[in-house]
Amino acid sequence: MGPHPAVAEIRRAVRLSLGDLPAGALVLAACSGGGDSLALAACLGFAAPRVGLRAGLLTVDHRLQEGSAERALGVAGLAGTLGLAPAEVLTVTVGREGGPEAAARDARYEALSAAARRLGASAVLLGHTLDDQAETVLLRLARGSGTRSLAGMAAVSGLYRRPMLGVSRATARAACVALDLAPWEDPHNTDHSYARSRVRHDVLPVLEGALGPGVTEALARTAALCRDDADALDDWADEVYGQVRGIGVELTVDGIKDLPAAVRRRVIQRAALAAGANASALAAVHIAEVDRLVTQWRGQRMVELPGGVGVVRRYGTLVFASTLL
Amino acid sequence: MGPHPAVAEIRRAVRLSLGDLPAGALVLAACSGGGDSLALAACLGFAAPRVGLRAGLLTVDHRLQEGSAERALGVAGLAGTLGLAPAEVLTVTVGREGGPEAAARDARYEALSAAARRLGASAVLLGHTLDDQAETVLLRLARGSGTRSLAGMAAVSGLYRRPMLGVSRATARAACVALDLAPWEDPHNTDHSYARSRVRHDVLPVLEGALGPGVTEALARTAALCRDDADALDDWADEVYGQVRGIGVELTVDGIKDLPAAVRRRVIQRAALAAGANASALAAVHIAEVDRLVTQWRGQRMVELPGGVGVVRRYGTLVFASTLL
Repeated sequence: MGPHPAVAEIRRAVRLSLGDLPAGALVLAACSGGGDSLALAACLGFAAPRVGLRAGLLTVDHRLQEGSAERALGVAGLAGTLGLAPAEVLTVTVGREGGPEAAARDARYEALSAAARRLGASAVLLGHTLDDQAETVLLRLARGSGTRSLAGMAAVSGLYRRPMLGVSRATARAACVALDLAPWEDPHNTDHSYARSRVRHDVLPVLEGALGPGVTEALARTAALCRDDADALDDWADEVYGQVRGIGVELTVDGIKDLPAAVRRRVIQRAALAAGANASALAAVHIAEVDRLVTQWRGQRMVELPGGVGVVRRYGTLVFASTLL
Repeated sequence: MGPHPAVAEIRRAVRLSLGDLPAGALVLAACSGGGDSLALAACLGFAAPRVGLRAGLLTVDHRLQEGSAERALGVAGLAGTLGLAPAEVLTVTVGREGGPEAAARDARYEALSAAARRLGASAVLLGHTLDDQAETVLLRLARGSGTRSLAGMAAVSGLYRRPMLGVSRATARAACVALDLAPWEDPHNTDHSYARSRVRHDVLPVLEGALGPGVTEALARTAALCRDDADALDDWADEVYGQVRGIGVELTVDGIKDLPAAVRRRVIQRAALAAGANASALAAVHIAEVDRLVTQWRGQRMVELPGGVGVVRRYGTLVFASTLL
C-alpha cells in the first residue's frame, strides 16, 4: 500500500521545491509544531535523502506563551524520528516594533536566517499553505495597494521556500493524522484580536457561503497571477528607469510621459526610493501627486514625500532631492 | 447657502466626467429610479446646461416585476422637474441566456445603446458607485481570473460612463434626501438568491468588521490600480504579438520564450483568440498548457482549446489552427 494521498501530495510538493539544489545541500524545515509545518517537516525528512539532500529542523521559541520552551523542545525532539538532523531550538526576544504580530515575525525570521547561515543551509522551508495564501490576499486587499500586494507570499524568497502554497490546510491536517503526528494548536490562531484569525474564522466562511466553494483556491490563483503581472511590470519599469534617469535622481518628463500609467508610476517610485524616500511610508497617493507633475502640469510647487524627499519639475525634468539638508 | 455636500460631490463628479464632450452634445442618464441613478440623473440635469450640454433620461422596464411599467413611467415623469429632456421608457424582453442577472443586463444595455444611437447621444451615464465597484471586485475575486478581472468596472467604456465610481452609496442616498427625491428600493437588491446581494449584505459587513473601516474604498482603489496594470500589460502584449506572429496564426518560440510569464501568456491568449478560440470559455488553465509548449517542451501532443482550436509546436513555432475542419 502506498502512502496516504495527503502525505503523497506534500512529499511531491516538497520534492518539486528542492529540484534545483546541489547534491548534499542542507535544507531546514521551520517548524512551529502546528499541523502545517509538522507535515512539512515529516515530508522533508522523507523526501530529502531520496533526492540526495540533507534535512534538518529549526523551531523558534518566542517566549510569549506559558510553556513555550517545553513545546519547542518537544518539537525538536521529534526531529530524530522524522529523519531530521540537525535540530535546533532558537530562543528569541520579541520586541514591540510594528505591533505584536510584526515583531514576532521579525524576531523569528532573524533567528531562522542566522541559524541557516551558521549551519550552512541552502534553503529554509516554511509551512504556509493555500489557505494562508488566501488569507494573505484578503488581508492585503483591505489595504488597496495594488498588484504587488495582492501577489501574496512568494514560493521562493531568498533562502526561504514555501513548498505548500498549493496544498490546503485540510491536506496538511490529514497528513498529520495519517503519519500519527499530534499537531500543536496555537491559541493565536483562534484569537480574534489578530486580523488573520478574524479573516480565517469570520471572513472566509462567509465568502465561501456567498460565492460558493472554491473561493480559497481562487484567491490563491489570484495571488499567483498578480505576482506574475507585478514581476513583468517591475521588469519594464526597471528597464525604463535605467534609460531615463539623469545625473543625480532625475527623470526627464519626455522620457516617461507616454508610458502607460502603471509603468510611469513604478518608474517614479524607483526614483523616489533612490532619492531616499521611506519605502514603508511611500504610498500610492504620494506617487500619484508626483505623477501629476507629469500629466497635469500647471506650475505646481514641490511635492513632499515621506522620508524627507522633495520633487520639483524644472525645465522638463523631475528632480528628486533630500529636503533634510 | 450652497448645495448639500453630497449633492455638490455628485454634481462635481458628473461635470468632471463630461469635460471632453463638445458643446451641445446630448448626454443621457440611465435611471432605474433607485437612489444611485436618481441622484445621478438629478445632478446631470443641473450640471449639463451649465457646461453647454443637453441632458436626457432613459429608464428601462424589464417587465420582470409587478408594477414595473408604472414605475418606469413614474421615473420618466420625474425627468421634467430634473431638467432632463428627452425622457424615454425602454421596454425590453429579458431572455434566459447566462442566468437571470446576465440576461437582464444584456437586454438593458442593448436597449440603452439602441436608444442612444437613435437619439444621437454622445454618452450614457450609469449610476454605479464606489460600493458597486467594491462588490464587483469581490465577485471577480471569487473567479481567480487575474488583474483584468479585478479591474472591475471601467469609468469609460465606449458610449457608457460611470461618473460615480468614486462616490459612495451613502452619499447618493444623502443627495436624494437633500433633493427631496424618493428612491425606489429594488427588491432584487436584498434578494439573497443574487450573488451581488449576498456580497453586499453578508460579505462586506463581515470584511469591514474583520479588517476595519475603509475596506470598500480599498477595494475600489485595488480596482483602479489593477485596471492600469492590466492596460499596461495588454499594451505590451499587443506590441509583442504584432512583432512575433507569423503567417496564419503562429508564434515563434524564440520570439516569446524570454518574455515575462505575464506577457507571454497574454500573447498566447491573443493568438488563441485570433485562431477562433471561444473567448468566454478560454481560461487560465488552457493558456498555461499552451505556455508549457514553450517553457517545458518535451514533445507534447496538441493542446486543445475551447472553440475547436488546437495548438502544436512544430520546429520552434507554435501553430494555432482550427480542429473543426
